[in-house]
Amino acid sequence: MRITDIRERTVPLDGNIANALISFAEHTVSMVAVVTDEMRNGKPVVGYAFDSIGRFAQGGILRERILLRLRSAKPASLLTPDGKRFDPAKVLATAMRNEKPGGHGDRAAAAGAVELAFWDLNAKLDDEPAYATIARHHGRPAVAASADVYAAGGYYYPPGSTQTLHDELASYRDLGFDAFKMKIGGASLSHDLARIEEALSVAGSGEHLAVDANGRFGLDEAMSYVEAISPYALRWFEEVGDPLDFDLNRRVAEAYAGPIATGENLFSVPDVTNLVRFGGMRRGRDLFQMDPGLAYGLTEYVRMLTVLEQHGFNRAQAYPHGGHLINLHVAVGLGLGGCEAYPGVFQPFGGYPAGCALGGGKVRPTDAPGFGLEEKPELRQVIAELRC
Amino acid sequence: MRITDIRERTVPLDGNIANALISFAEHTVSMVAVVTDEMRNGKPVVGYAFDSIGRFAQGGILRERILLRLRSAKPASLLTPDGKRFDPAKVLATAMRNEKPGGHGDRAAAAGAVELAFWDLNAKLDDEPAYATIARHHGRPAVAASADVYAAGGYYYPPGSTQTLHDELASYRDLGFDAFKMKIGGASLSHDLARIEEALSVAGSGEHLAVDANGRFGLDEAMSYVEAISPYALRWFEEVGDPLDFDLNRRVAEAYAGPIATGENLFSVPDVTNLVRFGGMRRGRDLFQMDPGLAYGLTEYVRMLTVLEQHGFNRAQAYPHGGHLINLHVAVGLGLGGCEAYPGVFQPFGGYPAGCALGGGKVRPTDAPGFGLEEKPELRQVIAELRC
Repeated sequence: MRITDIRERTVPLDGNIANALISFAEHTVSMVAVVTDEMRNGKPVVGYAFDSIGRFAQGGILRERILLRLRSAKPASLLTPDGKRFDPAKVLATAMRNEKPGGHGDRAAAAGAVELAFWDLNAKLDDEPAYATIARHHGRPAVAASADVYAAGGYYYPPGSTQTLHDELASYRDLGFDAFKMKIGGASLSHDLARIEEALSVAGSGEHLAVDANGRFGLDEAMSYVEAISPYALRWFEEVGDPLDFDLNRRVAEAYAGPIATGENLFSVPDVTNLVRFGGMRRGRDLFQMDPGLAYGLTEYVRMLTVLEQHGFNRAQAYPHGGHLINLHVAVGLGLGGCEAYPGVFQPFGGYPAGCALGGGKVRPTDAPGFGLEEKPELRQVIAELRC
Repeated sequence: MRITDIRERTVPLDGNIANALISFAEHTVSMVAVVTDEMRNGKPVVGYAFDSIGRFAQGGILRERILLRLRSAKPASLLTPDGKRFDPAKVLATAMRNEKPGGHGDRAAAAGAVELAFWDLNAKLDDEPAYATIARHHGRPAVAASADVYAAGGYYYPPGSTQTLHDELASYRDLGFDAFKMKIGGASLSHDLARIEEALSVAGSGEHLAVDANGRFGLDEAMSYVEAISPYALRWFEEVGDPLDFDLNRRVAEAYAGPIATGENLFSVPDVTNLVRFGGMRRGRDLFQMDPGLAYGLTEYVRMLTVLEQHGFNRAQAYPHGGHLINLHVAVGLGLGGCEAYPGVFQPFGGYPAGCALGGGKVRPTDAPGFGLEEKPELRQVIAELRC
């Protein structure tokens, strides 16, 4: 068995929305296809994945570094000892050959897209959903399960806009969500408090509503928000300060009784280890949101989970950032706390196809082989282009 | 005054050498040219820079993100208030528009190459060497000075090779160097100790010889080397463990009496702040080797120096990684401890042109405008290609 081609394509994201810090209008995603010489129903088995939502496509790093290394690798060097499946850890090591330590940024997303495509591929070789392949590989029962999911959104609307934050969250509730996340930090504290009250009128109570500052706050502003939002007993307070400001994170954790959440902008085991060592994260309470597609893929993500568990955290505290099918399979396969969803935005990648039966705040992968990306109508065109 | 074009080109590095962890044979560099509508001697003023040695060119990130933002910026938005010079901090902010916090890897090198080209440009607009522009901009006297420099190399040679470590360092000594750096960690401890003794036969004493593990060691191996090399009282012990393993760095600093050095693989203020907070670096002793070209350029580098000085470190403890003309001007302009040199390797970027008058372990920038890259014969071809 060998790879006959690896293709990549840059796909723009639909939707012109802004969080506290960043406009997503420019953001792009790298979609990767790994084509093999294994045939099923007369067609070659192809593994697909992408590098997740929220940063950028990595065509340059893929074409100039990572895909060159994989194309020049001996076919057997990427396989399990029996030669029947690909070994994602070997794929990652090959993809990273001659890369220096440190500097875990864009290349982590490039490598993540590629490594995840091999999980899609392995699952298709076994004609099973990816969560089952992931579970078995990690010594877990390969059983169908739902994942806890929440609707991330809660954007800013100008006064007098025809849409309101209330309407937005109500539309998610009507889809079957019972937990929500909204942006804060893009307006004054008093305006944000009014928005939280507006959101609570849909969410019902604080335990159904998380807030996300997208890394915006310095220490003083963080502490003002800590004091002001504490009475709401919110689901969690996300990315309070710069993702690498572990000292700020520790101080917030010491001052804020409710859960805090961070990690979506940490892309390596060394960075997550520093969060655990220095960031004051609390066992059984705070949440880790690392995203495999942005962080070298599932192999590195599982190493991160190991670091967490070695430090006394539980994998129920892991809620990957992203809001798409790949991380749904990861969450089910690894038995994580849950995952994100972005209803209606970040197309063609965001959200879940109809078969995933969203309801009661849970979503369930279908039995489609691999990550089931082929079931998502919005992805059909890009998959068709990559297949040719 | 406005930019008429920004060009970039990927340039391979000469030389097929390996350190403890990485082969440099694949490494590439991004060279950038910023063309303006200002004329000198009938030709447009062009700023050149590159993203430093030792990682990779960043053509994808430059073409798909950073250069698009700069090209679409209003010309005045990149200038000083009087409109007469470019403002590198504004250039950097524009280059980074809509980039998220965290993930300081490849994009930091892409942004670094661009930001540094604007320093070359500003210096040429004033018809002065870049060290003078850099010094004046930061409130320092713009005086010609030499920088302390050391020869980095000390590679591994197979037994019976026609070249030896002794010969290599002796050739640097004959060029005018009196301090040397050699690789360790690519062989057994006993073999490395024999190599250190061989190197000392040229260096004379430990204060003239540094060792570089290139981030290779885990804690146990680090401690074995700490114990074994302590008697040599070496110049410094560089990048002992993973550049982000601040806990290991602290333990080594507690156990090793001599100077340690690190930072060449930290690419942002938040990462350097974590090194200072958690890494156990010692005031007046240890060395910081962050490299502007890999780390968003001079604007971010000066912010890093501010963090160091706020924590009681002295800028004499800063020795940028790199070994090329750009960092020589940075070291002289900012009054740093010194800088690196790679005699004869990493062409066309490494080393200094003849006019820089290497001698007595010091090197001095010429009076050529900007970074003086045009004086380096090895760069003539790539500069000519970018100029067209």
